[in-house]
Amino acid sequence: MSETTRIRLNAPYLLLIGTESRPTFAKTAMGLVQWCPDKVIGQLRFEGCELDLGVPDVSVTEAARSDCGSLVVGVAPVGGKVPDSWWSVMEQAARAGIDVVSGLHLRLDDHPGLVAAAKAGNARLIDVRIPPADLPVGSGKPRSGRRILTVGADCAIGKKYTALALHRALARAGADATYRATGQTGIMIAGEGIPIDSVVADFISGAAEVLSPDNQPDHFDIIEGQGSIFHPGYSGVALGLLHGSQPDGFVVCHDPLRESVSGWPHFGLPSLEEVMDAHVRMGQRTNARIRCVGISVNTSSLSTEDRATCLKQLARQTGLPCVDPLIDGCDAIARHLLDELTGR
Amino acid sequence: MSETTRIRLNAPYLLLIGTESRPTFAKTAMGLVQWCPDKVIGQLRFEGCELDLGVPDVSVTEAARSDCGSLVVGVAPVGGKVPDSWWSVMEQAARAGIDVVSGLHLRLDDHPGLVAAAKAGNARLIDVRIPPADLPVGSGKPRSGRRILTVGADCAIGKKYTALALHRALARAGADATYRATGQTGIMIAGEGIPIDSVVADFISGAAEVLSPDNQPDHFDIIEGQGSIFHPGYSGVALGLLHGSQPDGFVVCHDPLRESVSGWPHFGLPSLEEVMDAHVRMGQRTNARIRCVGISVNTSSLSTEDRATCLKQLARQTGLPCVDPLIDGCDAIARHLLDELTGR
Repeated sequence: MSETTRIRLNAPYLLLIGTESRPTFAKTAMGLVQWCPDKVIGQLRFEGCELDLGVPDVSVTEAARSDCGSLVVGVAPVGGKVPDSWWSVMEQAARAGIDVVSGLHLRLDDHPGLVAAAKAGNARLIDVRIPPADLPVGSGKPRSGRRILTVGADCAIGKKYTALALHRALARAGADATYRATGQTGIMIAGEGIPIDSVVADFISGAAEVLSPDNQPDHFDIIEGQGSIFHPGYSGVALGLLHGSQPDGFVVCHDPLRESVSGWPHFGLPSLEEVMDAHVRMGQRTNARIRCVGISVNTSSLSTEDRATCLKQLARQTGLPCVDPLIDGCDAIARHLLDELTGR
Repeated sequence: MSETTRIRLNAPYLLLIGTESRPTFAKTAMGLVQWCPDKVIGQLRFEGCELDLGVPDVSVTEAARSDCGSLVVGVAPVGGKVPDSWWSVMEQAARAGIDVVSGLHLRLDDHPGLVAAAKAGNARLIDVRIPPADLPVGSGKPRSGRRILTVGADCAIGKKYTALALHRALARAGADATYRATGQTGIMIAGEGIPIDSVVADFISGAAEVLSPDNQPDHFDIIEGQGSIFHPGYSGVALGLLHGSQPDGFVVCHDPLRESVSGWPHFGLPSLEEVMDAHVRMGQRTNARIRCVGISVNTSSLSTEDRATCLKQLARQTGLPCVDPLIDGCDAIARHLLDELTGR
């Protein structure tokens, strides 16, 4: 595989928080601290910032003296406009040889001052929303290794979280596993990946093939799902990712209380059975062995009692491990996968 | 709808043939003469060209004196490299105020001489492979008017031809119908459209919505299908197009003798029943009324006798009009649609 077909980031990271004080707007930075603390050397906060990620405050000068690989913009700017103070620290970092990594909608390349600083410092400007060049068309050729994809009836239903939690559970159980990132936060956490929804339509499944290549027979790729094959806006992304991933198994991310597509109130959601059934039907096209291997349930709006009942009922209905990954982790699903692997 | 969200070409066209002599490499030009002869004022051939499209030979100077809208590159250059002689006539046309339209892989904008000529002549350089900017995410909102999509188990199985033939049959029958182009030749024929497989993944269904907007209740949009929801490389394009088109009906393009995906010999093809069934299942997500309205069959490798038997057998099997569009046209499918419309 060509080195150009994946985004690859240099760790460790310094996280730019600026003056952001609302946790919702600093989700990316918080996700990095939660999922890859080893990659984070600190946070860069400006005066007046009330948010604290619980990692050291580090200036660009200090970061440059250590081996900091990237300044990561870990927050969304209020009103969408990037303040001047951000541009000056980004320029300072780039001039000091630290890559600047952003998931913002604007392009770093469009800022001549930053481009000049990066040139002077021999640093890279990386927009994690921009897919790599030279992606192939999907070949559909069978590959070795095991692949698990997280799917769901909707967007924003836990596909990234579940993939990260399942990867962690497999790694803890001693399995050989890699998390494969398809979205911007995931790419920052993994340090590499492909923003699958920004790829040109003809190359969706080809990008998925590049992302989860041939591997050892017992190795697991845990692939972060995107969109949904049922989504009126994003179904193309999801089906290309399903076909290109050739998953041996999928985990359905399920929200028992969600009644309609998030942001599309006129669209109802398919039942859990329909979601399972459709993914088997469509997924069989590139992997005849595909099956559901677990249900990842968001039980946050349920009482403790209802939560237990809900998970038990779903387990009875599906015959599969059903977990809330925030509360239980994904160990039960990992065990199920490893038991299958060893034929238990 | 914004004017920027579709490619729109200026007719009439002068077709650049150059020295190409092999019909296969001049498919686009031949398609234009076949499907939109009213838009074609002539062909531009260089010395030694043995191909004749049966339209007048017209020079750029003559074209400029008439009201020629676009010089259309209607052939693929041998070996992929565009000869100098082509660049000089393209520059001459642009300088004379004639748009240059190309479906070549290279970008017209990358040629400074041509860019300067276009600026001087106030002409446009249009790559029909480059999708328009500012496409929306698909909303899935129901729209008025009737939409028919051509689909199939594979690429290159007659989806463009069938859509054009069905559009022609409906127009002849007095119906109000528009052909909606999703690929480069189709866009040149229609004079507008969106190259759906070049759109960024997140916007596939949104592009399809822009392409076939709200219309009069009895108006038909006949939408050119792309790829296949069963294709290991192009399924994402096809599902996004299906969901965004919200078709009331679809025509399955079928090749009874094809056994595997064209160019993917290790991939078998689903049966006609599977193709019909899967499109209803998946298409219902955005249009509950979706159904198959006809089968368009490629019978070119069958004897006259086998051909009749094959079409009869398929008609019995599906209960739908089954035609070979090259031999029979699509009148039977058009009649079926109009009968349904008037409740007959």
